[in-house]
Amino acid sequence: MINVVAGIDIGGTNTVIGLVTNNGDCLIESSISTKNHSHFEVFVKSIFQEIEILIKKIGGNHTLIGIGIGAPNGSYNLGAIVDAPNLEWKGILPLSKELLKYTSVPTIVTNDANAAALGEMFFGGARNMKDFIVITLGTGLGSGIVANGKLIVGHDGFAGELGHLTAFPNGRICGCGNKGCLETYASATGIRRTVFMLLADSNQPSILRSVSFEKLTAKMVSDAAIKGDQIALEAFEFTGKILGLKLAETVAMFSPEAIFIFGGLAKAGVLIIEPTKRYMEENLFPIFRNKVKIIPSELEGKNAAVLGAAALIWQNNS
Amino acid sequence: MINVVAGIDIGGTNTVIGLVTNNGDCLIESSISTKNHSHFEVFVKSIFQEIEILIKKIGGNHTLIGIGIGAPNGSYNLGAIVDAPNLEWKGILPLSKELLKYTSVPTIVTNDANAAALGEMFFGGARNMKDFIVITLGTGLGSGIVANGKLIVGHDGFAGELGHLTAFPNGRICGCGNKGCLETYASATGIRRTVFMLLADSNQPSILRSVSFEKLTAKMVSDAAIKGDQIALEAFEFTGKILGLKLAETVAMFSPEAIFIFGGLAKAGVLIIEPTKRYMEENLFPIFRNKVKIIPSELEGKNAAVLGAAALIWQNNS
Repeated sequence: MINVVAGIDIGGTNTVIGLVTNNGDCLIESSISTKNHSHFEVFVKSIFQEIEILIKKIGGNHTLIGIGIGAPNGSYNLGAIVDAPNLEWKGILPLSKELLKYTSVPTIVTNDANAAALGEMFFGGARNMKDFIVITLGTGLGSGIVANGKLIVGHDGFAGELGHLTAFPNGRICGCGNKGCLETYASATGIRRTVFMLLADSNQPSILRSVSFEKLTAKMVSDAAIKGDQIALEAFEFTGKILGLKLAETVAMFSPEAIFIFGGLAKAGVLIIEPTKRYMEENLFPIFRNKVKIIPSELEGKNAAVLGAAALIWQNNS
Repeated sequence: MINVVAGIDIGGTNTVIGLVTNNGDCLIESSISTKNHSHFEVFVKSIFQEIEILIKKIGGNHTLIGIGIGAPNGSYNLGAIVDAPNLEWKGILPLSKELLKYTSVPTIVTNDANAAALGEMFFGGARNMKDFIVITLGTGLGSGIVANGKLIVGHDGFAGELGHLTAFPNGRICGCGNKGCLETYASATGIRRTVFMLLADSNQPSILRSVSFEKLTAKMVSDAAIKGDQIALEAFEFTGKILGLKLAETVAMFSPEAIFIFGGLAKAGVLIIEPTKRYMEENLFPIFRNKVKIIPSELEGKNAAVLGAAALIWQNNS
């Protein structure tokens, strides 16, 4: 009998479900739409039915021993999603409680970035680390922080919101209602905003002048930078400067062994890592200098969210 | 037979040694000079001799089960002091190794602010908390951070340096060599600098205009504020604004249940806590609002450093 865990990644559009072994092998994977369910309860029922279908497909010698879920605003303490901005259901959504209607295996919920951190710890580059941070540079900036070998979830289960550190006290408007949050600068969306700021401030020619804000992607900015486009290069320099300063502060708090970078903007590789590292070192409290690696996630390209969600269960069963 | 732990607080001038029970009772306490020892090894020998004297004084039914030491730049991982700016010996000072010459009981070293956090957890206001932060507002700003019930020491043992968060990227010169570190604003020294900045910038009359920088103390600033001195009141407002913003960022990372304030400037009580709390709330990521207490340490007035150093051992033996 082979034990498997269902790793679930709930996104605004799709929910991906995979069956993961304790080696981090995803045996099978499928997805259902997150939208178009009459109620949240119906959505949860669909998730469980999909798990049952996958278990049948891989054959009878597999046992489901738990369900790990990464979700926007997922609360570890409550086993629920709380006021997720990109889901159609509002308030507190009791995921674990709903799943208990169908199964008695343990269900653990956390936010998607925390899941990514656990995925890195169990199946990625942080396998031998007890103190590290994973940053996802996507639409926003998510982060999962591990110290003393444990995920930092805090008193209310919502700790690890590096995206909402204040980069500039009266800076860019953030979706959270505050101003100047780090994710308004250091994310795929943030670098688009920076490109438009630079295009507005300078007269420099740039291949990005022909692109609308809606059509601009982080990939287009990195492609332009590789071709030597000055605006695109400056955008990476500016992003790295802000991210580097805030990571220097983060290191002063946690003194991690490594910071893993993940997600859309992370695909720019050295373009984003080099200036971030340079500015981080420049701003570090001296005792921490030349100690902390900034490296790409080893799960890039794999379904890190599913693996990480599964790791929520495997961390208690391995 | 009653077990006791030697709690040791190594300061630049004096080293205080106390014998502490697992209830946090300090049965006896004395101090030796930190200065005027020919070598570091001689200093450590003097510490151990003093412990033996104290054990004899309290009678034969007490057993020493460990030695906990809080020291400037104390490294938990190395059991050593590393490049402490206020000690006459430089480099790595192997405290635990030296003490092993005289005793086989376990010795644990950490920095003084981490020791204060453990003291709060075992014997103070954080007794039922798993996620909290202790900030010492003295000459500098020290901090000890507990998450998941464990002290955050990081990969190298030096985590928890809130005093070196960057409050202003090109701000006041800090002793660490960087600019704009939080402790250059939020500390007993920081508020003196702020008073002088305000005296320079305004024409407002103030009883603090007759005092030199060297003679000015945090106590004089709080006494003046209580009497309604506008410069002193503005100095607390300014300090609270900066500390509040940086604590909002700290909460986004750790989501603690409470932040305890300790040390010289903390004695100003509501004068410093009220503006700090107000500005922290204003800058918090919405999900964390109205959840985090800022309160005075319950160990204020006691020898918190000695109790906290002893807690280093008791946390493994209670």
